[in-house]
Amino acid sequence: MAEHHSEGLSRSTTRDGVDRWTVRAVHEVTYDVVATQALFDVTNPTLATAGAIPAATEHSRRLIVIDETVEQLHGNQIRGYFTHHGVQATYHVLEAHEMVKNWDSVDSVIRTMAEAGIDRRSEPVIAIGGGVLLDIVGFAASIYRRSTPYIRIPTTLIGLVDAGVGVKTGVNFGTGKNKIGSYAAPAVTYVDRSFLRSLNRRHLSNGMAEILKIALIKSRRLMSLLDMYGRAVLDDGFVGSTPALANAADDIIGTSIHLMLEELQPNLWEANLERCVDYGHTFSPTVEMKALPELLHGEAVCIDMALSSVLSFRRGRMTRHELAHVLATMQALDLPIWNSSLEEPGVLHVALADTVRHRGGQQRIPLPVGIGDHEFANDVSADEVAHALHTLRTAAGMKAGEIAAAPEPEHDMVLKV
Amino acid sequence: MAEHHSEGLSRSTTRDGVDRWTVRAVHEVTYDVVATQALFDVTNPTLATAGAIPAATEHSRRLIVIDETVEQLHGNQIRGYFTHHGVQATYHVLEAHEMVKNWDSVDSVIRTMAEAGIDRRSEPVIAIGGGVLLDIVGFAASIYRRSTPYIRIPTTLIGLVDAGVGVKTGVNFGTGKNKIGSYAAPAVTYVDRSFLRSLNRRHLSNGMAEILKIALIKSRRLMSLLDMYGRAVLDDGFVGSTPALANAADDIIGTSIHLMLEELQPNLWEANLERCVDYGHTFSPTVEMKALPELLHGEAVCIDMALSSVLSFRRGRMTRHELAHVLATMQALDLPIWNSSLEEPGVLHVALADTVRHRGGQQRIPLPVGIGDHEFANDVSADEVAHALHTLRTAAGMKAGEIAAAPEPEHDMVLKV
Ligand SMILES: NC(=O)c1ccc[n+]([C@@H]2O[C@H](COP(=O)([O-])OP(=O)(O)OC[C@H]3O[C@@H](n4cnc5c(N)ncnc54)[C@H](O)[C@@H]3O)[C@@H](O)[C@H]2O)c1
Ligand SMILES: NC(=O)c1ccc[n+]([C@@H]2O[C@H](COP(=O)([O-])OP(=O)(O)OC[C@H]3O[C@@H](n4cnc5c(N)ncnc54)[C@H](O)[C@@H]3O)[C@@H](O)[C@H]2O)c1
Ligand SMILES: [Zn+2]
Ligand SMILES: [Zn+2]
Repeated sequence: MAEHHSEGLSRSTTRDGVDRWTVRAVHEVTYDVVATQALFDVTNPTLATAGAIPAATEHSRRLIVIDETVEQLHGNQIRGYFTHHGVQATYHVLEAHEMVKNWDSVDSVIRTMAEAGIDRRSEPVIAIGGGVLLDIVGFAASIYRRSTPYIRIPTTLIGLVDAGVGVKTGVNFGTGKNKIGSYAAPAVTYVDRSFLRSLNRRHLSNGMAEILKIALIKSRRLMSLLDMYGRAVLDDGFVGSTPALANAADDIIGTSIHLMLEELQPNLWEANLERCVDYGHTFSPTVEMKALPELLHGEAVCIDMALSSVLSFRRGRMTRHELAHVLATMQALDLPIWNSSLEEPGVLHVALADTVRHRGGQQRIPLPVGIGDHEFANDVSADEVAHALHTLRTAAGMKAGEIAAAPEPEHDMVLKV
Repeated sequence: MAEHHSEGLSRSTTRDGVDRWTVRAVHEVTYDVVATQALFDVTNPTLATAGAIPAATEHSRRLIVIDETVEQLHGNQIRGYFTHHGVQATYHVLEAHEMVKNWDSVDSVIRTMAEAGIDRRSEPVIAIGGGVLLDIVGFAASIYRRSTPYIRIPTTLIGLVDAGVGVKTGVNFGTGKNKIGSYAAPAVTYVDRSFLRSLNRRHLSNGMAEILKIALIKSRRLMSLLDMYGRAVLDDGFVGSTPALANAADDIIGTSIHLMLEELQPNLWEANLERCVDYGHTFSPTVEMKALPELLHGEAVCIDMALSSVLSFRRGRMTRHELAHVLATMQALDLPIWNSSLEEPGVLHVALADTVRHRGGQQRIPLPVGIGDHEFANDVSADEVAHALHTLRTAAGMKAGEIAAAPEPEHDMVLKV
């Protein structure tokens, strides 16, 4: 057997004529998430000068893909900004919400990229919008010429704390939630909470779900922040009407981003399928698509988190008071813990089966342990899910105080009174 | 300014409230290219036992996407093999050639993957076919669930020595050649030249173009092999009718793969846009699409190589005899050096402009230096291209011997007699 090695390429030939090459290589990825204020104030030089990648010059062309609603609400300011800074901007206004999160939207973005004739390296596409728009444009950029740089500017709360900070892109395929996509880091993400002033209450709550997710699985401190300021910041629309509210808004967003990145960075390509940030994402992909357009993403996630919390409670990994605290927080943030689609027979079974395929053959369900910690379960039975579902339905009919005050029965009877 | 560092995540906060996170991560990729004989002989255990990724068991399910023509010619043997080895196979037969190398084909493969409910990690999709099928299936697998493992089994010469060995996938978009795609290593590629016995002469020559490419830019040894055995191996259809022809076929294929991997491995994601394997791929993407379906990929590449060789000659980087040798080799391998689409005004201008965008703003044209070496040019003028084109047209009308024997004029007059 002959062997030849170079750094990342080896070749071996066996006597019976089998030739084998092994190729090894490492891909280094780096990107920034920058939280700033008033990104589109003409006096803010960030966007105009940074340009995000080395080859960009101050006065270059940019393709800007913008969410239709954001265009209506903030378009003047955005166009004014680029005009002021002499950027030769081409705008592609895209309808973006869950119902059009599909290949056709990706196709339309790629078409525009091709028409604009953008350079492969030095003309990053700028995506401005919610999670849906960011996921569509990120996917389009990642496959155009097998990858073109792009910049993310999230305009929703989910975008600011979740969709904007990782490297995942993608769209739905048929009824499959985010079934096609890529891992493609943006050149940079600019986080500016001033966009939230135009976001309605329901979408703010929706974003709170992903913040609550990261608190429940890994941060008592973030949970305390939510306990103290969550509702007030929500009522204030993250505007920061007082210094205390502004601080709280920045702290909640900044802490969420930091905790999220702590989890994502060591596992950017999901080599490890045990991901605690998948909390709330075990049953929800199927439930969200089934209930479309009734449930928003964060709402479906919240229902899943509530169900998973009940599973933990029934396993003795969460006290009654902790569970009551979790459910009460969800209520305080105006998030649902129940949806009628859960009553459809078999829906959670189908959901779990698909998630098992998605997690390489095992359940790997992140379950909260108390508040601020988690463990992974691989042995959740159909029965257990059915009981938890029953418990959750009961709890959904109770007021916050009633859950904690209910008499202490056996675990599997709890909350059923 | 506060700074917090963890291994791959750093955070800095400036006094004016700008929070910046920098994320760094490395992605390790490894894959094998295995050249074996009679892969689908039931006594060959390679495919049935290897399974290509750790979690695969001997008796598992496999989705097999197969080129329609290959199915007609080799389907019985392939099905027999998997049946014999107890593999639960689902077959997706796909029409695959350049005219259908588009998103619709990718969509149909993804649909089948979703229906088959394949696991994210342990059920690699097996792609069997030519370069077009491999590029389609590789792209589909790379975006389904943001990446699903796949195995490549090339059945054409281009597949064996080029499309099967790297990590690029993709399809055409509109008139743009390979405009969307991904970098996605297969789990493994199995190279078995016995498929070539059913490939027609034109497609064998077509594959010879990519072999000649790698010889011209970096290997006098491979060029000698082609000089000595190229035509004979082609006439023999790579079957290996005599031990000498079998050796020559294996050596030509093995050497091509090795030389190709030497270039690809250090630059798998094309961070460096100066790629000598882009020789023949400067003008050809546009020419190929313009002439579709008249020119095959390798034919378009060969015309581009011929043109680029003339450019080198006119720059004094190749002797007349070397140029004659190159063009004669192309003729001996039944490859074209001219196509009427080149006469369309502006076509090479448009082609070069798109390539410049694709190469990040510079030409980076690999030009041969003598035979077996290369350099990159960034200053090829429109005039130079026009002159070279004229020279090439003249040469295309000459017989092999005439080129070398033509009187020695000034460089820019050469071959015009
Ligand atoms: N890639 C990831 O890692 C990741 C993470 C979390 C969520 N997501 C995805 O993100 C999506 C949810 O994101 P979303 O909640 O932002 O949904 P979205 O993008 O649909 O935005 C919600 C609505 O708000 C509108 N909108 C956007 N910005 C606005 C503004 N400033 N003012 C007023 N209206 C505005 C949009 O037009 C839309 O109608 C889901 O598809 C989910 O799968 C992705
Ligand atoms: N990904 C890469 O790195 C890479 C590299 C080189 C070329 N390519 C791509 O590969 C494509 C060209 O590949 P190709 O030449 O294999 O074309 P192809 O896949 O179209 O195959 C050529 C024809 O041969 C048929 N065929 C396949 N196997 C056969 C067999 N064993 N016997 C008889 N007929 C058979 C096919 O049905 C097709 O009609 C181009 O689209 C090119 O862009 C990709
Ligand atoms: Zn989510
Ligand atoms: Zn090629």
